Amino acid sequence: MKNVAVRNIERTDLAVVDALGELGVATVHEAMGRVGLMQTYMRPIYPGARVAGNAVTALAHPGDNWMLHVVGELAEPGDIVVVALSSPNTDGMFGDLLATSYMSRGIRALVIDAGCRDVRDLTQMQFPVWSRAISAKGTVKATVGSVNVPVVCAGMLVNPGDVVVADDDGVVVVPRADAGRTLEAARTREANEVDKRARLAAGEPGLDMYGMREPLAEAGLVYVDTLNDLPE
Amino acid sequence: MKNVAVRNIERTDLAVVDALGELGVATVHEAMGRVGLMQTYMRPIYPGARVAGNAVTALAHPGDNWMLHVVGELAEPGDIVVVALSSPNTDGMFGDLLATSYMSRGIRALVIDAGCRDVRDLTQMQFPVWSRAISAKGTVKATVGSVNVPVVCAGMLVNPGDVVVADDDGVVVVPRADAGRTLEAARTREANEVDKRARLAAGEPGLDMYGMREPLAEAGLVYVDTLNDLPE
Amino acid sequence: MKNVAVRNIERTDLAVVDALGELGVATVHEAMGRVGLMQTYMRPIYPGARVAGNAVTALAHPGDNWMLHVVGELAEPGDIVVVALSSPNTDGMFGDLLATSYMSRGIRALVIDAGCRDVRDLTQMQFPVWSRAISAKGTVKATVGSVNVPVVCAGMLVNPGDVVVADDDGVVVVPRADAGRTLEAARTREANEVDKRARLAAGEPGLDMYGMREPLAEAGLVYVDTLNDLPE
Amino acid sequence: MKNVAVRNIERTDLAVVDALGELGVATVHEAMGRVGLMQTYMRPIYPGARVAGNAVTALAHPGDNWMLHVVGELAEPGDIVVVALSSPNTDGMFGDLLATSYMSRGIRALVIDAGCRDVRDLTQMQFPVWSRAISAKGTVKATVGSVNVPVVCAGMLVNPGDVVVADDDGVVVVPRADAGRTLEAARTREANEVDKRARLAAGEPGLDMYGMREPLAEAGLVYVDTLNDLPE
Amino acid sequence: MKNVAVRNIERTDLAVVDALGELGVATVHEAMGRVGLMQTYMRPIYPGARVAGNAVTALAHPGDNWMLHVVGELAEPGDIVVVALSSPNTDGMFGDLLATSYMSRGIRALVIDAGCRDVRDLTQMQFPVWSRAISAKGTVKATVGSVNVPVVCAGMLVNPGDVVVADDDGVVVVPRADAGRTLEAARTREANEVDKRARLAAGEPGLDMYGMREPLAEAGLVYVDTLNDLPE
Amino acid sequence: MKNVAVRNIERTDLAVVDALGELGVATVHEAMGRVGLMQTYMRPIYPGARVAGNAVTALAHPGDNWMLHVVGELAEPGDIVVVALSSPNTDGMFGDLLATSYMSRGIRALVIDAGCRDVRDLTQMQFPVWSRAISAKGTVKATVGSVNVPVVCAGMLVNPGDVVVADDDGVVVVPRADAGRTLEAARTREANEVDKRARLAAGEPGLDMYGMREPLAEAGLVYVDTLNDLPE
Repeated sequence: MKNVAVRNIERTDLAVVDALGELGVATVHEAMGRVGLMQTYMRPIYPGARVAGNAVTALAHPGDNWMLHVVGELAEPGDIVVVALSSPNTDGMFGDLLATSYMSRGIRALVIDAGCRDVRDLTQMQFPVWSRAISAKGTVKATVGSVNVPVVCAGMLVNPGDVVVADDDGVVVVPRADAGRTLEAARTREANEVDKRARLAAGEPGLDMYGMREPLAEAGLVYVDTLNDLPE
Repeated sequence: MKNVAVRNIERTDLAVVDALGELGVATVHEAMGRVGLMQTYMRPIYPGARVAGNAVTALAHPGDNWMLHVVGELAEPGDIVVVALSSPNTDGMFGDLLATSYMSRGIRALVIDAGCRDVRDLTQMQFPVWSRAISAKGTVKATVGSVNVPVVCAGMLVNPGDVVVADDDGVVVVPRADAGRTLEAARTREANEVDKRARLAAGEPGLDMYGMREPLAEAGLVYVDTLNDLPE
Repeated sequence: MKNVAVRNIERTDLAVVDALGELGVATVHEAMGRVGLMQTYMRPIYPGARVAGNAVTALAHPGDNWMLHVVGELAEPGDIVVVALSSPNTDGMFGDLLATSYMSRGIRALVIDAGCRDVRDLTQMQFPVWSRAISAKGTVKATVGSVNVPVVCAGMLVNPGDVVVADDDGVVVVPRADAGRTLEAARTREANEVDKRARLAAGEPGLDMYGMREPLAEAGLVYVDTLNDLPE
Repeated sequence: MKNVAVRNIERTDLAVVDALGELGVATVHEAMGRVGLMQTYMRPIYPGARVAGNAVTALAHPGDNWMLHVVGELAEPGDIVVVALSSPNTDGMFGDLLATSYMSRGIRALVIDAGCRDVRDLTQMQFPVWSRAISAKGTVKATVGSVNVPVVCAGMLVNPGDVVVADDDGVVVVPRADAGRTLEAARTREANEVDKRARLAAGEPGLDMYGMREPLAEAGLVYVDTLNDLPE
Repeated sequence: MKNVAVRNIERTDLAVVDALGELGVATVHEAMGRVGLMQTYMRPIYPGARVAGNAVTALAHPGDNWMLHVVGELAEPGDIVVVALSSPNTDGMFGDLLATSYMSRGIRALVIDAGCRDVRDLTQMQFPVWSRAISAKGTVKATVGSVNVPVVCAGMLVNPGDVVVADDDGVVVVPRADAGRTLEAARTREANEVDKRARLAAGEPGLDMYGMREPLAEAGLVYVDTLNDLPE
Repeated sequence: MKNVAVRNIERTDLAVVDALGELGVATVHEAMGRVGLMQTYMRPIYPGARVAGNAVTALAHPGDNWMLHVVGELAEPGDIVVVALSSPNTDGMFGDLLATSYMSRGIRALVIDAGCRDVRDLTQMQFPVWSRAISAKGTVKATVGSVNVPVVCAGMLVNPGDVVVADDDGVVVVPRADAGRTLEAARTREANEVDKRARLAAGEPGLDMYGMREPLAEAGLVYVDTLNDLPE
């Protein structure tokens, strides 16, 4: 495989991206049909951030953050940098200097299947990062990888221009071609939940609201009064 | 094993439950004779919560949150829902809708050996959850488990009606029959620590206060002035 | 190996220690030539703390916190207690009583390759701890270890009197003999970054500022316009 | 909790035990209704062993193998020693001397939620062990636990006298009261599989043999000729 | 996402597949330019197997092995079944009955990012499996997934018809389009190593044979006679 | 820290080394006073090997095996190469070519806190390796480390010339200065066990042979006839 940096990628309309971001990871994941999530070890470096953007991707090597500099230059405002590794690594590939550079270019966040450092500074700068680890371990710039090619990051395939949504629940990836219909489905789902939330808050049993009693009985659930009444 | 939901369980007096809750996990665990803790991977989704309640239990299957709806209806104010899994799983079985329903019924918290989602909403609602993971992964309702049967959650046996205490230090389970004497022992311990804390704060060496010097010497500890004085 | 407690150790000048602490873990680690970090599983029990001190060390056994009492008495103001374990263990060896005692002696922090408890109290007291786990599991005082001997803590060799710097990024250890020159190198590095930060914030491409374009080309990175232009 | 060693326990008839052992872990687990398995980190120290026995149990502390001596004396021929830990630990609590003693008393195997050592010797002696780790780490005899009380080992509740079956697939626990009916169900299942195996070996599609085609269609599976024929 | 089973896929010529299989995982991975490996947690259930085949893929859900039956029927002689999971799971989705069916259809192996059981039987049958875990945990057939769609298995993208090579070193995936040139590169590499192996066996220093002395010096490696001669 | 390769180190007498090797890891570890073990994740790539040698050490970087070539040339017959990493990494740094070179120089084994590949070949060549992982992932030769300096490998400090003993139980390190007295203590221990083994094999209760009955009672163990007789 040649090591390439792809300059031009097709992005998703930022209006769609932003709307997906407001809905959040769980809702978008459900709207996609329960797919698209990265592994749960990807955690935000500080709580409370919610962000969405177009993926620009980098494939890097353990202990080498060279490609994070290359991808930054090819990013546009509204992008999220997604970094995959050629083998598992937790080194601190990203810190406050790169964040300063990324912010100056309008990059919204970093999603990296490796380590991050300068967490205190990044928190103050409010530049959100989802990473596999926090590590001060410094890196070299010796081996090139690729930029804006399809990558597998934390178990999920990411193509450049896919929509990445990230919040306290994790990271979800929406393929560019599915962004529009996913947004529609997510909005429907969200609207649907307003009424449900009100009914549940008022004390209506979920088993009634969801019509679960019959299916539960059919699936074999038996109610007994006490543990001593257990059937054979 | 039949799949059953037990309606009636014997609970611990809420006065005892609440008093245990005020003492916290570490003190209660010590008062029980250093037993009762769940595995340390059970972590709160936000810091600072401390809660106690009567256990209502559910045994669920990977990727299936059906039983969390069933157990909710059988809970009473002052209960904590405890969910065990039939095999290890991190899917996000619980979110803001279920939390809304649980809060409307007076359920105080969730302890789940699986994943939790909608963490941002749950934090705003201040509904505390101790879980194995945070995950947006949605679940199905296809396979029934059981409710209010004895379960092993995060390595600890929990019977319905046992007292569950949870805080930043983790989760401890007090068997219903031991709740009263555990409370007594915990209070004694707590009272005992007030004086110790004052003496230590005043600079009294712990080795003197605890009378450790002689036992240390008997156990073979040798003091030397420098590393070069190490005995053969 | 005999079990010894060494009373007198050579410490690093606190002016140097404090200056290293202000620079933080990542900068100090880089200034040392990218060495000295403990494993990344060592995490602070609350965010935001940054501290440096002279290491006083203890080698303890699983489930036994006896040596934490011994080391406390041999510590001086400005010290950080570093605890290594003879085999992996997550028990809660440290809580609010020991912290009270440590604070009364001017100990600045604890770094422990095991568990910590009373996290809520320690947070209120603002006594910072970096640990492998949070666990309420109580410990015994039955087997002696050693104090102020060289130990391996979370993968890093620590000699008594070495400088320990810890913050949100982790823990780094500076050998006493290297403290002075490390401080110098760290200050140079820090000064160097001020200008870089300003230029990056102003939008100067990192690839230009760092002179990376030629090395990247030499290392084989090829720019293409689109993914379809990938060379064979 | 007092530290006790219980002398007399009720065991399961060895004829039933042996018959369960011949059927193996997977079949017995299915016959119980898909419950009873310990966590998958419990692995045999050498491949190929399959064994069943009555559980005699010990609750031990990290780094302390005292109770393994106590439980050995209370065991009878046909027993399997099951050791649970009060907190996670991998120390090598068991080696060739204890195995020699156990074999002389007719103990069939050890299941331990901690470490094992002398693996080469144990393999030569053909004394099977299922453990969480292999570790040469030696242990002390300083803190007592309990023997022949209910324990949670690797996530599973084990009562003394329960049947333990272990092979290359892991470890399953059959409550004494369920042993007879489980054996019956397991034999039925096994008989049932002989015919299935022959038909599958002859090339009969599983989808036909199990009558899966209609349920699959109902559950929403759509067959297409090529990936390009994917429905919207 | 619809749940589909794709009947017809384009496969790689078995002559190429078999030749890649003979070369083994490490050589093929190098020939591809050091990419294509699944995560290292994918281990063979018994040592010594080496196999290659065309990928037929399944996306399954935790605790549900329904798709393993569907994919089996769509496989052809020379295929390897590759199973990805929608979220992490270790349940024993595959055992001797499915293996019997697979062998009758000429399927060469299973690569599954979940658990496997009946390990003793599979070893006797010599049906090789690479899995994330060994687990007797039984599964249901309740939720459909997809068959012969692109999947991410153990961190690696697998398209139907890609070549999968697996041995004691792990699992590598060769995209169908790259199979021919990868074989060529792998053969060149292998031929190249014969001579090197002979020279190294004869005692020729690798530093000479690979011409490393100058690059090492340029990269900053300094030889000293003893540790006391360390440069400042 | 400069990157150095130290040519001359002081080694332990091979007669002592070989004698320690015959005694094995567990016995040597006990004879040292229960210290010296590497972490338990260090496993042999095939079962049954037992070896001892003088440590020659290398500090390498993630994904870079350059130093493994350098250390090989500085090794002598009877040495074991010990490789530490500057941050956690599982890449396959060692394969059959390096093993060929190592064997030609009389190197007895490799102990590496990273990955190993060509496991099938290495097994056939009977070159034993203890590693953190098995991985086919190839490495580069871009960044220099150091050779024959003190390193921390899998949690244990190793100085060049220390004795390394490795077998199925793991890896233990004996400081050169302690080798003689450790051998003596290990032989005494071994001799001592012959008699014990015979007595235990003859059925003598360990509680009698070790004189444990009184200490157990003093430590608080209470014998009861049945679980119903449990004291309050």
